[in-house]
Amino acid sequence: MLRTMAIGVGRAVQTGALFRRLRTLHPSSARELAQCARAGTPQGPGGGGRAASGAAVLSAVGLGLAVCASRREHAEHPVLLGYDTSTFMAPTVTQIAELRQAVEEQNNSSGESGKLGTGEDRTRVEMELLIMKVQGDVCHELERLDGEGQFLVDCWKREEGGGGITCVMQNGKVFEKAGVNVSVVHGKLPPAAAAQMRSRGHTLKAGPDGLLPFVAMGVSSVIHPLNPHVPTMHFNYRYFEIQQIDGTKDWWFGGGSDLTPCYLYPDDASHFHKTLQSAMKPHSPHLYPHFKKWCDDYFVNTHRGNERRGIGGIFFDDYCPEGESGQTALSLVRSLTNAIIPAYSPIVERRMGITYSDLEWEWQQLRRGRYVEFNLVHDRGTKFGLMTPGSRTESILMSLPLTARWEYKHEPPAGSREAELLEVLRQPRELIWMDDNRLPKAVLNGELSNGKRDRGAPYKHFNDSPKKYLSIYNINHQLWETQPADRAAW
Amino acid sequence: MLRTMAIGVGRAVQTGALFRRLRTLHPSSARELAQCARAGTPQGPGGGGRAASGAAVLSAVGLGLAVCASRREHAEHPVLLGYDTSTFMAPTVTQIAELRQAVEEQNNSSGESGKLGTGEDRTRVEMELLIMKVQGDVCHELERLDGEGQFLVDCWKREEGGGGITCVMQNGKVFEKAGVNVSVVHGKLPPAAAAQMRSRGHTLKAGPDGLLPFVAMGVSSVIHPLNPHVPTMHFNYRYFEIQQIDGTKDWWFGGGSDLTPCYLYPDDASHFHKTLQSAMKPHSPHLYPHFKKWCDDYFVNTHRGNERRGIGGIFFDDYCPEGESGQTALSLVRSLTNAIIPAYSPIVERRMGITYSDLEWEWQQLRRGRYVEFNLVHDRGTKFGLMTPGSRTESILMSLPLTARWEYKHEPPAGSREAELLEVLRQPRELIWMDDNRLPKAVLNGELSNGKRDRGAPYKHFNDSPKKYLSIYNINHQLWETQPADRAAW
Repeated sequence: MLRTMAIGVGRAVQTGALFRRLRTLHPSSARELAQCARAGTPQGPGGGGRAASGAAVLSAVGLGLAVCASRREHAEHPVLLGYDTSTFMAPTVTQIAELRQAVEEQNNSSGESGKLGTGEDRTRVEMELLIMKVQGDVCHELERLDGEGQFLVDCWKREEGGGGITCVMQNGKVFEKAGVNVSVVHGKLPPAAAAQMRSRGHTLKAGPDGLLPFVAMGVSSVIHPLNPHVPTMHFNYRYFEIQQIDGTKDWWFGGGSDLTPCYLYPDDASHFHKTLQSAMKPHSPHLYPHFKKWCDDYFVNTHRGNERRGIGGIFFDDYCPEGESGQTALSLVRSLTNAIIPAYSPIVERRMGITYSDLEWEWQQLRRGRYVEFNLVHDRGTKFGLMTPGSRTESILMSLPLTARWEYKHEPPAGSREAELLEVLRQPRELIWMDDNRLPKAVLNGELSNGKRDRGAPYKHFNDSPKKYLSIYNINHQLWETQPADRAAW
Repeated sequence: MLRTMAIGVGRAVQTGALFRRLRTLHPSSARELAQCARAGTPQGPGGGGRAASGAAVLSAVGLGLAVCASRREHAEHPVLLGYDTSTFMAPTVTQIAELRQAVEEQNNSSGESGKLGTGEDRTRVEMELLIMKVQGDVCHELERLDGEGQFLVDCWKREEGGGGITCVMQNGKVFEKAGVNVSVVHGKLPPAAAAQMRSRGHTLKAGPDGLLPFVAMGVSSVIHPLNPHVPTMHFNYRYFEIQQIDGTKDWWFGGGSDLTPCYLYPDDASHFHKTLQSAMKPHSPHLYPHFKKWCDDYFVNTHRGNERRGIGGIFFDDYCPEGESGQTALSLVRSLTNAIIPAYSPIVERRMGITYSDLEWEWQQLRRGRYVEFNLVHDRGTKFGLMTPGSRTESILMSLPLTARWEYKHEPPAGSREAELLEVLRQPRELIWMDDNRLPKAVLNGELSNGKRDRGAPYKHFNDSPKKYLSIYNINHQLWETQPADRAAW
């Protein structure tokens, strides 16, 4: 209750801060904000008219209208599909009325007549509400943790269709730079580009114009704390839909959450990974080691001797399991997004108070240099975004830290805590850290060997677990007798 | 004379600094230095044996030997093809004896028997000596300007063949980070890779093994000063040679010099461009506007609304003019490398004393963020290097500044000096700035219209200059009457 109030106040102050900030905004963002206002305002001549004329001042008024509009909207019927839209940072990119209509059409099972079509409509509508909820929840939680920093809310429209909401906090007390970005874009793509959007591309049947209607939406965030002992966190959850000429829809989810510390705290790594693992267990426990390995294999600075960006987490793409509905797939994504704050927030709270030296700060700056290298040289999303005409560079590069550093051939002294981190980055450990240093539970009870645990059955013995699962955990099965003594090395 | 002595002292101190630095060096660089030592040391059992055993300490001895070895070499016959090898930062990558032998074979026109083959051998040998000279001259000049900073000399070998010498100064009094890198690599390439090395690729006739022997060598440098009023400078001059099955050699030069200031000083821009233009004039004056435009078109952050990285300079690639010998082409490169210090040094001297504010420093940090973006996202050489297995990342990323900064949607206030720079970066001006703001001389006298100035003839009138040359200078010929009033806008 108290916390909700605190957030309420936060929002109010933030809107004020936003108005002040607007005077110094880039003209283009003023335009964007005006567009955002139009998007969020009931299209009466009043709102439209006001938003249509003038520059910065109007854009401020415009955003004011936008926020009020969404507030009015919320006041009347704040909840849609169980999502409380009054906690969102801004009005949804797709007009809330349009989303509501789509839901009603679904409920009346008259979808085929609706201009949004049938099938995955509910999934799409719910995903847009979900990413808005995640943005709101994360921004409010970071503002709570920081105590001082406020998010700037920046709405923008994409000429080709859709738009987004970029929330950025800079120079907070705890967070040096944090960005949480929602984007919902739609339009038509040439098949080649459509295939490129998908890591396992396959031929898509385009319409007579040779184009494919698509919808892409997601929430992505990078959080760079001030204190070198608080890890940087990144998460991104996205949904793609491509409509083929025969009306069939090709859809998939992608995403992940991963942690990038400057100093290794096994407890933090353990907590982070176990929280993600638990979130996935009810859906399909065998996915965790797969997604965990995918993360270890993706966030790699190959040009730095395959040094990992961080201590991992999970990463997945093209997620549309055979025979599963969009709703079922979405439920996994929902669990993973619900796990973001529980996975990260406790780590921030227990490390943000640690005092640090100039050397530790400098080490953080060097690690941020590596972060920049990965994002600009290797990250598929960033490269695709920067090369796409009309994409919004400021939202894409929101992921870069406020400051970074490069020294020629810097190498921490052997045995130092800095060197300890590098070891893990160069050879990822098994990261289901168990509090009490037991063998990974999944290995002990063979939970993974048959995709799910034998409910009620006695735990299997360690050597019942198939070797292939041991290999997933980088555990040499021939040495398993000695493993307990060697836990620290996993 | 005095300066030479100063340099002598500088070298001595630097070697001392180097020995101290070695204790903290990465093991791998210790290995590299040991290899360097072997490369530079007469392969007697003594030198070889000592260099072959032990780690860091030996590598220090190794380098000591290397330096001494080259010194001994110099003492006997320091000059080769007119290049004083005693001014080099380290022994040449190709053993000096081998280079000498190649030259003698040339002189005795018995090249066909030499294992280096005939034809462009002299060009290749001289290019290696030239890039070593440039490295030495620039390092010594930067040490002179800095007064405190010393270059670390780091020799390295490339397993596939060849190696390099990386000189880095960090945390100097004037230069925050400066790197001057020489590399001479050779080996065999698949035709695809060979073609990729060349921007205008064309089919090459490979040997029975389907591979093409190649040699690639160059000197590249990025100099990041501490003071925001002193511009960053980059230069790079390179030579490629690919041998086809029929023995014919495909060769070309590439390179350029460009300036990246944080604040616009027209005098500096004018001086820099005119120095380069003058260096090219004796060879082929019509090349300057072409190479200048190439530079403006290459160093562009397309993802930042085509913002240029800096105020330009020259850039060229695939330079092997029809019917010209390697020697003739090399003479242009020689002039351009000789122009590096005269183009940059006076600018450093007249700006390094300016006091600057925290805001100016922060602006510099933001501009460095853009520098990082260009190098990691767009620069062909960097991308090619980072993706090439076995390439030396530390030498490639030597170009990155010590520190950089990214702020969400930072935009300097209209009319500020920061905004003035952005204007020029977003719309490159005609950059043959004339001291007295006259129209560009080349435009006035039609010097470019026929490739060279009509010696002795009266200057042509402005309107004699063909429109196509005006367009090169972004001058609208229909408005030329008004141009003089509007010079500032060029």
